[in-house]
Amino acid sequence: MARKLYELQGRADKRFSPYCWRARMALWHKGLEADFIPVQFGQKHKISFSGQKLVPVLQEDDGRVIHDSWAIACYLEDAYADGPSLFAGASGRAGARFFNGWVDRTVHPAMIRLLLSDIHDSAIVDADQSYFRTSRENRFGMTLEEFTDPSESRIAAFREALEPVRYALEDTPYLAGPAPLYADYILFGSFKWMKLCCTLVLLAEDDPIYNWYER
Amino acid sequence: MARKLYELQGRADKRFSPYCWRARMALWHKGLEADFIPVQFGQKHKISFSGQKLVPVLQEDDGRVIHDSWAIACYLEDAYADGPSLFAGASGRAGARFFNGWVDRTVHPAMIRLLLSDIHDSAIVDADQSYFRTSRENRFGMTLEEFTDPSESRIAAFREALEPVRYALEDTPYLAGPAPLYADYILFGSFKWMKLCCTLVLLAEDDPIYNWYER
Repeated sequence: MARKLYELQGRADKRFSPYCWRARMALWHKGLEADFIPVQFGQKHKISFSGQKLVPVLQEDDGRVIHDSWAIACYLEDAYADGPSLFAGASGRAGARFFNGWVDRTVHPAMIRLLLSDIHDSAIVDADQSYFRTSRENRFGMTLEEFTDPSESRIAAFREALEPVRYALEDTPYLAGPAPLYADYILFGSFKWMKLCCTLVLLAEDDPIYNWYER
Repeated sequence: MARKLYELQGRADKRFSPYCWRARMALWHKGLEADFIPVQFGQKHKISFSGQKLVPVLQEDDGRVIHDSWAIACYLEDAYADGPSLFAGASGRAGARFFNGWVDRTVHPAMIRLLLSDIHDSAIVDADQSYFRTSRENRFGMTLEEFTDPSESRIAAFREALEPVRYALEDTPYLAGPAPLYADYILFGSFKWMKLCCTLVLLAEDDPIYNWYER
């Protein structure tokens, strides 16, 4: 049985979930192969064996099941300790954990505000559109279109929120230091998500973060 | 000539600068002794040898001069590489750098909003009060008293801004992992500053961050 990573699937087979990108990049970093199994919002039965409803889910070739992107990264780091490290030690792991929490709680909310209706329109398969709209409109208490606000001031606020990233990149080429590690993949996943879902130019080309992303 | 750390001095010899606390803790972590030289806002001539106007300034026993708390931490880490590490490697250093930028750009502005006039009233020596008031009122475009707003909603926003710290502390007892390193001292300095300047209770006693601080 081959190793499998279950990940969110969108329109035109877009794999747009930032959390699934984290898991995909962690596997790649460790040099581990896997089959990438698409799961749409309406296909949660495919991951019912994991006992919960969110992707990414990693199923190892020996049957072990790990869900949650952070848990998957920690599992891969410990189970494949001989491979290239994702964290470079306990202090690097703790730093990546803080960064993970910061991206989820600061960067993603600012990003969603700019592009939620774009996600719906360009990335969600027809069969999932109604579920996506209803669940998000209930969560935010307004329509997708009312919630989504790519005004100049919101884009400026998004760029401003990323200021600690620029400060970090003044010192080292990557967020984890001289070479990219899991901290970099965390934010990389967010930008992949954005790029796959919308055509807004959210970073100026002379932004050091743009440069980091392209590398 | 003994090693000297020049640090900000307030009323009743309070050493309240969060940046000076970072440098003090870094010295302590490395097991290095120093004379702590007080500098009031009106005594910048004491550090004119450093070619700039901000404390902390570290003057080594051989005459080397380093200013800026991050530069001091990096200097100590590299110059005393045999002592206990402040970062535990390049990845830990990069994580601490991001954390440093996040605290300065997110935590401090939210904190200052709550207690700027308390800093003035309780921590600034008489001779510095006029300078402190004028410089801050010019920066913020209003009086200290107008700017300072310890309302419940601002305190709630401050606590909410710290959410990524709570997320990190779910995983490890310290921000740098199993033991406190420089990342911990960064935020520790912010809370020392708050505690020395105001009597507001900004963290609930059951907040995991309160628990971390007390440790």
